[in-house]
This record gives sequence, C-alpha cells and structure tokens, in this order.
Amino acid sequence: MGNTKEAIGMSSSVEWRIQVDDGSKEILVPESKNGFQRFLAALKGLIVNFTLKICNFFKKAWKIGVDDPRKVAHCLRVGVALCVVSLFYYMRPLYEGVGGNAIWAVMTVVVVFEYTVGATLYKSLNRICATGLAGFLAIGIHWVASQSGTKIEPFILGASVFLLASAATFSKFIPVVKARFDYGVTIFILTFSLVSVSGYRVEKLIDMAHQRLATIIIGTALCMVVAMVVYPIWAGEELHFLIIRNMDKVSDSLDCCVAVYFKADEANPNSDEACSKNLEAYKSALNSKGSEDAMANFARWEPAHGLFSFNHPWKQYLKVSSALRNCAYCIEALNSCLYAENKSPDFVKSHLADTCSIVSSNSCDIIKELALTIKTMTRSSTIDMSVIKLNDSVQLLHENLKSLSTLLIPEEGPQNTTDENEHKEPVLTVSLIEVIPLVSFASLLIDIAGRVEGLVQAVEGLAKLADFKPAAEEKPGLKSVN
Amino acid sequence: MGNTKEAIGMSSSVEWRIQVDDGSKEILVPESKNGFQRFLAALKGLIVNFTLKICNFFKKAWKIGVDDPRKVAHCLRVGVALCVVSLFYYMRPLYEGVGGNAIWAVMTVVVVFEYTVGATLYKSLNRICATGLAGFLAIGIHWVASQSGTKIEPFILGASVFLLASAATFSKFIPVVKARFDYGVTIFILTFSLVSVSGYRVEKLIDMAHQRLATIIIGTALCMVVAMVVYPIWAGEELHFLIIRNMDKVSDSLDCCVAVYFKADEANPNSDEACSKNLEAYKSALNSKGSEDAMANFARWEPAHGLFSFNHPWKQYLKVSSALRNCAYCIEALNSCLYAENKSPDFVKSHLADTCSIVSSNSCDIIKELALTIKTMTRSSTIDMSVIKLNDSVQLLHENLKSLSTLLIPEEGPQNTTDENEHKEPVLTVSLIEVIPLVSFASLLIDIAGRVEGLVQAVEGLAKLADFKPAAEEKPGLKSVN
Repeated sequence: MGNTKEAIGMSSSVEWRIQVDDGSKEILVPESKNGFQRFLAALKGLIVNFTLKICNFFKKAWKIGVDDPRKVAHCLRVGVALCVVSLFYYMRPLYEGVGGNAIWAVMTVVVVFEYTVGATLYKSLNRICATGLAGFLAIGIHWVASQSGTKIEPFILGASVFLLASAATFSKFIPVVKARFDYGVTIFILTFSLVSVSGYRVEKLIDMAHQRLATIIIGTALCMVVAMVVYPIWAGEELHFLIIRNMDKVSDSLDCCVAVYFKADEANPNSDEACSKNLEAYKSALNSKGSEDAMANFARWEPAHGLFSFNHPWKQYLKVSSALRNCAYCIEALNSCLYAENKSPDFVKSHLADTCSIVSSNSCDIIKELALTIKTMTRSSTIDMSVIKLNDSVQLLHENLKSLSTLLIPEEGPQNTTDENEHKEPVLTVSLIEVIPLVSFASLLIDIAGRVEGLVQAVEGLAKLADFKPAAEEKPGLKSVN
Repeated sequence: MGNTKEAIGMSSSVEWRIQVDDGSKEILVPESKNGFQRFLAALKGLIVNFTLKICNFFKKAWKIGVDDPRKVAHCLRVGVALCVVSLFYYMRPLYEGVGGNAIWAVMTVVVVFEYTVGATLYKSLNRICATGLAGFLAIGIHWVASQSGTKIEPFILGASVFLLASAATFSKFIPVVKARFDYGVTIFILTFSLVSVSGYRVEKLIDMAHQRLATIIIGTALCMVVAMVVYPIWAGEELHFLIIRNMDKVSDSLDCCVAVYFKADEANPNSDEACSKNLEAYKSALNSKGSEDAMANFARWEPAHGLFSFNHPWKQYLKVSSALRNCAYCIEALNSCLYAENKSPDFVKSHLADTCSIVSSNSCDIIKELALTIKTMTRSSTIDMSVIKLNDSVQLLHENLKSLSTLLIPEEGPQNTTDENEHKEPVLTVSLIEVIPLVSFASLLIDIAGRVEGLVQAVEGLAKLADFKPAAEEKPGLKSVN
C-alpha cells in the first residue's frame, strides 16, 4: 500500500482522503471503539499509572531505609514497645474492655515514643507531670464545686475549664514555655477537662486518678527504657554530628569554590559532578537551623551519655552553628562570583590565584580543625598557630591586592566623568574594570577569613563550657585521645 | 570615719585591718548572724527573687498579648470550644462516667484545635480519616483472628499490631507523608492498637467504633466551625503577609545599609537607633524558612477565603521567599562592609555615592513594588520599567567604577612584587588599596541587583499561577483595585 497514512483512533466524522501510489483515492474510515473498550483502556492506564506510583513510593521508602538503617530500627522499636504493652494487658486482664484504664498505657506508648531519646524523655516527663498536676488541681476544684451545691457546681466547673484552658493555651505563645513544655500544656488541658467533664464523686475520682497516673507511668517508663536501651538515638549526639558534618561541608564548598574560580573558564563550573555537589554543600548549613534548634531543645532532657554530661552546653552548639552560617552566607556571595557576567581575564586572576588559594586553604584547614576539635572533644594545640597563619595569608593577600596596580595599563583619553576638577592624571580605564571582579572575590575571601575567626571563638567558648580535654601536646603522655 | 572600708557579710575568720584617717588601725569584725537569721535572709532573698521572676514572666506574657491580640482571641476560642463541648455532655448525659465515648469529643477538641484554620483542618481531617481507616482495618483483622481459634488469635493480633505500627512509623520518615499526614499516621497507630488490645467481640466493636467515630466527628466539626467562624486566623493569609513584611524588611535593610555606608565615618553605624534596627531587619527573612514551610503546608488544607482560592499556589510563595532569602544573604555580606577594618576614604566614596544610592533605591523600589503586587494581588504596570531603570543604573555604576581609575594616584617606587617581568609603568599603590573596599561594596550591590531580578521572576511566576488581576493602567476603567 506504499505510503498510505493511517488515522487510527480518530473518532470524529471527518474522512481523510489520501493520494496513494497508484493514483486512485482511498477513503480512510476512522477506527471506532465502543464505550466498554474505551473504559477498559482508561482503566488499564489508571492501573498502570497507579502501580508505577506505588512502585516509586516503595523505591523511595526503600532508599530512605537503606540510607539510614537507624530509621528502620526505630520503627521496629515502636512495634516492639507496642506489642510489649499490649501483651502486658493480654496476660493480666486488669480491665473490662477499652473503657478500662489499660488504654492509657497503650495511648501513652503511641504518643510518647519519638525518634530521639531526648524527644521521648521530653514528652514522657511532660506527660507525667502535666497529668499529675492537672489531676490534682481538677480534683481540688471538683471538691470545692461539689461543696457549693448542685446549682452553682456546673458554673464553677465550666468557669474553671474556660479560664484554665485559655490561660494554658496562652502560655504556649511564650517562647520558653513553647520550647520546653508545649506538650505538657496540651496534656494539662486534656486531663483537666476530662476530669471536670466526668460526673464522678471525688472519692472515686481519686481512685481513678491514681490508676490513670499509674498506667501512664508504666507506659512512659516502658518508652524511656526502650528508647535508652534498645539502639538509642540521642538528640545531643545527632546535633553534635550534624554540626560537624555541616562544618566539613562548608569547608568543602569554600575549597571547591576557590578552586573552580581559579581553574578559569576552560572548565565549566558545573562540568565536574563531584565539585558541583560540593559547591552547593554549604546550603545544608543554611537550611538546618530549624532541626538544630529542635535537637538542642530535646538534648537538654537527656541524661549523661557517651562523651556528653547531663549539663552539656547544648546552647553553645547553636552559637557555633550560627557562626558557621555566618560563613556560609558569605560563601553564597562568593559562589555567585562564579556565575557573574563580568570576569577578570585569566592573566589577572593568576596574579592572586596563589594567595587566594592559600587564604582559602588556611580557612578550610581551620574549619576542619575546629570540626575535629568538636568531634574528639579535645582542644587543638595548633589552632592558634593556624589563626596566625590565616592572618598572615590575609595580610599577604592585602599586599598582593596592592601590587595589582602594577597590572593596570595607563590609557590616555577624554574623561567622561562628572568630577572634572579631580586629578588630570592618565586615565586607567580598561584594566580597572577587568580587575574589579577579582578584587571583590578577594575581598569576600578576606571577609570569610574574619568570619572563620568568629567561628574559632564560638568553638573556644564551647571548649571552655564543655570542658574539652587539653591538647595532646600540652600534657604529653598524660591522656590518650579516645 | 573618712575612707573606712566595710567588710559586711564576710563570714570567714580573717580580720581586716584598715588604715583610717587619724593614722590608727581598726579591726573590722565580720558581722555575725545566727543560723535562723541567715535562713530568714536567704528565704527572703529567694521569695523576692521568685516574685521578681514571676512578675517578669507576666510582663512578658502581657507584652505578647498586647503585641498580637489575635493570640488572646485564640485562647478565648479554645476556652469557648471546650466549654461548649463539655456543656453538650452536661446537658445530654449520654455516657456513664469517663469511660464512655464522651471523652473522645473533649479529647478531640483539646488536641485538634490549633492557632490557624489550616492546622486545625489538617489535624481534624487526618484524625477522622485515620480513625475510620484504622478502625475498619482493625475490626477486619479482629474478625479474621476470632475465626482462627483462641490459640492463634493473640499471635495474629500481636503480629498485626507489630507490622502495622512499624510500617506506619516508617512512613513518617517519607517527606510527603511527614508533611501531610504525620498526625494521621499517629492516630492510625493509636486507633489500631486500641481496638486490637480491646477484648470485645466483633459485633460490639462495630457498635463502639460507630459511636467513637461519631463523637470524634462532633469534636472536629465543632473545632472546624469555631476556627473558621470565630475570628479566623488563616495560615495562608499569615504566609502571604509574612512574606510581604519580610520583603519590606529586606528593602529597608538594603536602603539603610547603603545610606549608612555613604554617610561616612562621622556617624557611627550604630548611633541611630531606628537605622540600627533596620540594618538587622533582613535577618527576619533569613530565619523564617521553618515557619514559612509549615504555613504553606497548612495553607493547602484551607478552603477559599478572602482573596485566596482553594488551589492558591502556596508552593510558589516558598519560591518567592527563597528568592528573597537569596537577596538577604548578599545584604548580610554588604552589611559586614560597614564594620570592615579597611575603609575607603570619604572623597573616594563620594565618587560612587550617588550611583550606588541610585542602584540601591531602584532595587528597594522594585522589592517594595513586588510586595505591593503580592499585597494587592494586582500585576504592576511599572515593574518592567523599574527593571529597565535598575539595569540602567547598574550600567551607570559600571561606568562609574571604570572612571574610578582617574582617582588612582601614580606613584614611583621600588616594586616588591614577584612578577618583575610585568609592565614597568609607574606603580599605583596607595590608592588602589583604598579603593578596594568601595569596589567590593559596589560589586555586592550589583550582585544584589541581579538577585532582585530573580525575585521579580519568582513574583511573576506567582502572578501567573495565582492569576493576579492585570495592572490598572492596561485596562483603564475596567477594573477597580480592591
């Protein structure tokens, strides 16, 4: 049939007339499908689509599990804790149906068990204290109300619920309360309302409150023990290593950024896969403020563990990370020099390449050294020398910036500027504008070096507060580094 | 007694001998207190301290309430909702004691009622769906288990709790699930475990599930109605105005930073109270990522309200705020120029003062215009002109940077640099190093101008997606601006 065209799937009534090889005309009738077939096709498409989506979802989930097996471990822990608390009640039928107090232990486990030990402790202690306090208060008010006659009783109870719930809700807006007792306040309102709504007599209430508190303590105790014993994940440790990782990333980014800048135009900054990844690595430091704050909040609830004492200065970690972010802001500005329209020519760049690289590598060394200081919790014996080295290299960069003027080509030409009364010296136009991108790059590097010193101070503050071990060289043979 | 010194409060046995005016020596005996007096003093100190702290706490709380009366309104709403749900059960005693299903309505109100409508809806819908789904599944498994004999039953139930709780906990680590269904997953585990732990027969379970779901629906419905009707606080609106406020702050900071830089040294950057506040204002944009993400997540649950439709592109707001943060990073670097050690002398600065001010004021105008565009949800008719104006001023700044070379003073002297083979022109040392701080300041300004254009694109994307009204000038008389 030669080059006949087909119009399969056309459902309109238009006829297609197409010239075929033998010169005759042929009428192509569109293939018609009945409703059922179309429905089947659509259904098939839907199912395939859905299956693909589900597959993708599971692939993603699998990747999350493989990347961090501790997450899988946490899920198993939750399952185990729930089974234990259920079995506990299967074997000792203390209750009649779901109405009994048994459910409070199960509820507690589900609600209180969190990923990190700190979060679990925070919720557990908040839950116990808030339940106790609210129960105590509610029973008191209940007793007062019951003494004042059946007519006034509902008003007293209603007013107390209204006032306490409003006040407690408001307290959540106060930053200190929000950070430490947010969950406790919710549980306080919950318990207080439940007791107030209940129509029990006070004697029965005390019995019930006692049982309720006991089951909640059983639930929280189970959670706390499982969280701390079975494959524990400490919020403090997470914060510790997150900041160390971020320091390494910032240092890698800085190193890579300077390397790419001076590797010059023949290589596209994005060409090298690993380098392009490193270039963006500092963003991790910029974006982790929220999780760092949360972890520092949880870490304060944790008992001594590993290298950390109970009163480890977690707040100072936040200062370190803030100083690190300060460096990262500047690296962001430095990074955009790589993509700027105006670039200095290579021969100009080569003039500062070495000194810039030295400043950047000195800065990187310091950041890595600080990261190691935090990691080993041992003061560095060489950090002072490194800072002096950095300052020297910054000084050298200053000198080299001065000597850049030897590169400027004097040029004679009409002056188009507004200040005609200025010096009538030979005008140096072409080269200054070519030098400017390099000069601002170098200035940013100097700025970063200053911010690195801020980081040194923050880490020194941490070393003082957390009582880091003295440097190995200072007391040789006395202590071994863990 | 002239310059006699006192040693009150010393409780050690050391005697202080002090030379007084008349040349004689005097022995100061430390003031002795008996145990009870000391205890009283300590107690008094404690009480005063405690009272002061409490007073401070209440002052802070009062300030929070005065600064944002909506927070107070929210607390009253919670109180009202709780009273209503309690009264509902006071008047219709549907239950016997706390064990009845009544408590689920009260619990739901306490747990589900959040500050914004979006958060309340998110929790409400998650709670209803998760309870329904988990109840349905648990009853099914319960039925299967009950059919398979009393010996196997506990194993089937235990295994199902373990598997489902683990899987559900794991799903929380998947970002999409975490963002949209975190609360639902918790409630799913909770309901499933509770039903599995309960020893009821299936028929009774269905009855109970029906009542439970009904009370939860009553509680959530009450919350949703109160949240949306009584003084509603919409997460979307909050996000909308937060980003507008941040844009204004970034613009103020930029403006102020350039003004302070060129006002020169006679004025300390920190002298002017208002200006110093504005200088730091951009930090608000840097630090609000977390709350913006949360609000965008909640906003997607909200129905159409005010200017916003149901499918308002909240994600694009995050892109706008990310573009704004990009500007803020550079302003951070710009800000540190104010505090740099090396500064350009005033006569050099004056050379670029005008053009820099023009670039900054053009950038500020654009940011403010974009803020107004978002605020009124009306495309700006002048934004294209403003961008052209900004580009022109950046071009002018480039030209002025070039003409800076007229300022450089030629100097003859020995060359101490390493490249002896370079041009042997007169060396221009002194001035170049003085010009460098100004040049890097100007370069950063140019970088900021580029980032402002990125912001323009992000807002244009928002205008397209959210279908902003066309500019008033384009269709005169057709539409009136709200």
